[in-house]
Amino acid sequence: MVDMEEMISSAVDRNLYRFLEELCDFLRIPSVSARSEHREDMVRASSWLRDQLGRLNIETQIYTDYGHPLVYGSYCPYADKPTILIYGHYDVQPEDPVELWETPPFDPSIRDGSIYARGATDDKGQLFTWIKALEVLRATSGRIPVNVKILIEGEEEIGSPNLHRFLVDYKKRVSANVIVISDGSKYSRDTPAITYGLRGLSYLEIEVIGPQRDLHSGVYGGIVKNPLNALVEILAKLTDEKGQITIPGFYEDVVPLEPWEREEMEKLALKEDEVRDQLGVDSLFGEEGFSALERKTARPTLDINGIWGGYQGEGAKTVIPSKAGAKLSMRLVPNQSHQKIDRLASDFIKSLTPPGVKVYVKQLHGTDPVIVPRNLKEMEIAIKAIKKGFGKEPVFIREGGSIPVVVSFSRLLNIQPILLLGWGNPDDGPHGPNEHFSIENFKGGIKTAAFLLEELGKS
Amino acid sequence: MVDMEEMISSAVDRNLYRFLEELCDFLRIPSVSARSEHREDMVRASSWLRDQLGRLNIETQIYTDYGHPLVYGSYCPYADKPTILIYGHYDVQPEDPVELWETPPFDPSIRDGSIYARGATDDKGQLFTWIKALEVLRATSGRIPVNVKILIEGEEEIGSPNLHRFLVDYKKRVSANVIVISDGSKYSRDTPAITYGLRGLSYLEIEVIGPQRDLHSGVYGGIVKNPLNALVEILAKLTDEKGQITIPGFYEDVVPLEPWEREEMEKLALKEDEVRDQLGVDSLFGEEGFSALERKTARPTLDINGIWGGYQGEGAKTVIPSKAGAKLSMRLVPNQSHQKIDRLASDFIKSLTPPGVKVYVKQLHGTDPVIVPRNLKEMEIAIKAIKKGFGKEPVFIREGGSIPVVVSFSRLLNIQPILLLGWGNPDDGPHGPNEHFSIENFKGGIKTAAFLLEELGKS
Repeated sequence: MVDMEEMISSAVDRNLYRFLEELCDFLRIPSVSARSEHREDMVRASSWLRDQLGRLNIETQIYTDYGHPLVYGSYCPYADKPTILIYGHYDVQPEDPVELWETPPFDPSIRDGSIYARGATDDKGQLFTWIKALEVLRATSGRIPVNVKILIEGEEEIGSPNLHRFLVDYKKRVSANVIVISDGSKYSRDTPAITYGLRGLSYLEIEVIGPQRDLHSGVYGGIVKNPLNALVEILAKLTDEKGQITIPGFYEDVVPLEPWEREEMEKLALKEDEVRDQLGVDSLFGEEGFSALERKTARPTLDINGIWGGYQGEGAKTVIPSKAGAKLSMRLVPNQSHQKIDRLASDFIKSLTPPGVKVYVKQLHGTDPVIVPRNLKEMEIAIKAIKKGFGKEPVFIREGGSIPVVVSFSRLLNIQPILLLGWGNPDDGPHGPNEHFSIENFKGGIKTAAFLLEELGKS
Repeated sequence: MVDMEEMISSAVDRNLYRFLEELCDFLRIPSVSARSEHREDMVRASSWLRDQLGRLNIETQIYTDYGHPLVYGSYCPYADKPTILIYGHYDVQPEDPVELWETPPFDPSIRDGSIYARGATDDKGQLFTWIKALEVLRATSGRIPVNVKILIEGEEEIGSPNLHRFLVDYKKRVSANVIVISDGSKYSRDTPAITYGLRGLSYLEIEVIGPQRDLHSGVYGGIVKNPLNALVEILAKLTDEKGQITIPGFYEDVVPLEPWEREEMEKLALKEDEVRDQLGVDSLFGEEGFSALERKTARPTLDINGIWGGYQGEGAKTVIPSKAGAKLSMRLVPNQSHQKIDRLASDFIKSLTPPGVKVYVKQLHGTDPVIVPRNLKEMEIAIKAIKKGFGKEPVFIREGGSIPVVVSFSRLLNIQPILLLGWGNPDDGPHGPNEHFSIENFKGGIKTAAFLLEELGKS
C-alpha cells in the first residue's frame, strides 16, 4: 500500500500543471445558472464534463429534462465493492460586481499560488479534484478501485430546483453506499475538516408597490407612503439590535447546541482579530450569547442580499418611486424547516405592511439544514485519507452554507454517510469578486480523493 | 385695450401649432444636467434658446463660467417702465426608469391633448410660454411693452450650484422690479393659482461600508454586520409611524401654520379620494394632525429617493455586500435652514452607525424655503391676467417643491414680488415617466404671460 500511495502522490505532482490547464478550460465557460442568457454555456459546460468522464471510460449521460443539463456517469463493475456517489455542480454564481474583479471572472489567472476565476473554488475546482483522482487511479493501477457514480448538476447556485425530481425518477440508478461532496472549505488554511452539519436556507424576494407612477417628492412628499420608506421600515423590523430575528415563532424548532458541541467549538474558536483584519471591519457582529463560530455555523441568521428602488445614478433626483424591492435570506439550523420559515417570514412581512402600499413576498428558494452522523467507519477512512492528502488530521465542523441536494440525498435516497470534504480555504471568496482556489488545496484534494477511493475499495 | 387683448388671444390661437412644433424641437434635446454624458446637449439647448431670443431682438449672451451654459437676454429700452426678470431652466431630470415611458422621453408625442416628453412641463414647456408671449406681443403691437430680462439656467434640477455665484457677480445687470417664474402647477386642472410659498430641500447621500469585499452569506452570515441590514436600520429610524421625522431638533425652527392659513387651506382641501385614485393607492399617508394639503405644501417631509446594494438581478444570490447606499431628501418649511438640517440629519445618521460598519453622509444639494408677500399691486395684476388667460380667478397656494433660485432672488437681489405662476396640471408627472404638459395650459400660459407683461407695461 505504501507504494500505491507514493505512486498516486507522484502522479498527481507530475500531472498537476496539465490538470490546472484543464481546469482553466472548464473555468472559461461562464456557466451562470441564474441568468437565462447563459443557457448555451450550461450546455457547453455539461458537454465538457461528459468528454472528461468519457476519457475515463465512465459511461456518461446528459439529462436535459431537469432544468439545466444534468451530467450523470457510472462505472460499477464490482459486485463485491461499495458504490461511491460523487456529487458536484458545474454552475456558478453571477459575477457581479464585475468591476471589483482584478482579472476577468471568466479568464482564469494564476497568481500567488492560487487560480482566480468565478467557480474556481465553488465548485468547479473542487469537483474537478474527483475527476482527476479517478484519472490518477486509472493511470497508476490500471483501474478505478471501487464502484463509482458521479452526478453533476447545473442548478446548485439557484437552489437545485429540479434535482430532487431527478432523484425521485432515478432513485435506483443513483443508489449508493457513500456520497462524497467537495463544495466547501477546510476549517482554516492549516487545518482540513470534515463537515457534519450544514445550515438550511429560506430565500425570499419582497416587493413593495406604492403609487402607480414615480412621483415628484416636492409635489407629493407628505401625502403618499413612499415604497422605499415602507421597505426599509419592514426590513428593519425583522431583526433587533442584539442580532436576534424577530419573526414570531422563528426560533421555535431550533435545537439548542449541546454542551459537548459548544466545548468542541470553543477549542476551534475563530481568531476574531484575524477575521476582522481579513474582512477589513472594526468589529464582528452577531447574535448575543454565542461565539463567532457558533453564530456562523450553528445559529440561524437573516441577511438582506440585495435592495433596489428609486434613483441610483449620479447626482440628485427628487423622486418618490412607485415601487421598491429587496432580496432576503435566512440561514436555518436543525430542526428548522424552510417551508415553515418561508411561511412565518412571509406572514410577518405582510403583517408589517403600512397603509398606502402593497407588499408581495415570493419564495426564491429554500432548503433544510442537515446533520451527518459522525460515528461511521467511512468517517474513519476519510480522516486517514485527509491526513495523508493534506498532512494534517481534520477537525469536525459545521458549515454555515447550504447544499440543498444533501437534504435530498439524506432523506430521499437514505444514503449515509454523506462525506462533506471541503478543499477550499475559508477566504477563497466564493460568490464574491476575485474568487480563487489554492493550487496546494487543488493538489491535496486530488490526492485525498484518490486515497479515499482506493481505501473504500478495500472496505 | 379690449382690442389688444383680442389681438393677443387670436395671435396665440393662430400660431399655437407652430409654437408646439418649436417646443418639440426644444424637447428633443436631452438636456439632462445630472449626467455628464449630456454636456454637449446642454450646449445645444442653450444655443437653441439664444436663437429663439435673438429672433425677438433680445440681446442674448451665453455665460459658460457658471457650470452648464447660462442664457441671459435683455431688452430694456424704457426709462419709465418697470423691468421684469423672467426666470426658467432648460435642464431636465434624468429619464429613468426609461422602461416605464409609453413613448421615448426625448421624442415628443402629442396625444389626448397633451405633449409627452421629459421636460414638457418641467420646465421647457412652461418657460417657452414666456418666450412665445414676447413674440406675440411683438407681432401684435410691434413692440415688447415693458423692460424684460430673461435668465435661463441649465442646472436647476441639480440644485443650481452656480447660479448664486452668477447673481453675485452680475447683481446689477439682473436687477429688476418683478420676477416671474413658471415652473410649477395650477391648484387643480380647473383652478389656476399663484404660489406664495415654496418648500426648501436638504438632499443627502448615505453610504454604508462593511467588509472590504462581498461575502458569501452562508460562510459569513452571523459574524459580520451586513451593510444592507445596517442601512435599512438607520433609514427606518429617521421617521416614526405617525409620519414624524425623528431627527433631534428637526422641527425646532418650523413656524406653525396660522389659523387664517389653515382655514384657507381647509377651503382648498384636496379631494383625497380623487388623489388616491389618480395615484392608484388604497390610502394616503402622512404626518398625523395635518390635512393632506398642509402636509404636501406647508409641512416638512423625509423621503428616500433611491437605494442600492447587493444583488439586484434575476434569481437568488446569497451575498453579503461590502457596501450599500441611499439617497434621501427632506422638504423644509419656513423658517428651517437647509444648512442646519443638513448638519442635524448628518449627525443623527452617523450617531446611528452600528458596530462593524462605517457610515458616510454627503450633502448633494440644499435650498431654503420661501414665502412671498401677498399684498402687492403686481399680485393684483397677475390675478387679473390669469383670470383672462385661463378664464378663472386663481387661488393662492403654497407649493411642495423647491426652486433654489427663488431664495437667491429674494435674499440677494432683494426683488419683490416674485410671481410664481405655474401653468402645469398637478398630475403632469414631472420627474417621473410620461411627463406631459397640456396644450390648453400651454395656450393659457402664453396668453396670461402676454396679458401680464402688457399690463405691467402700463404700471
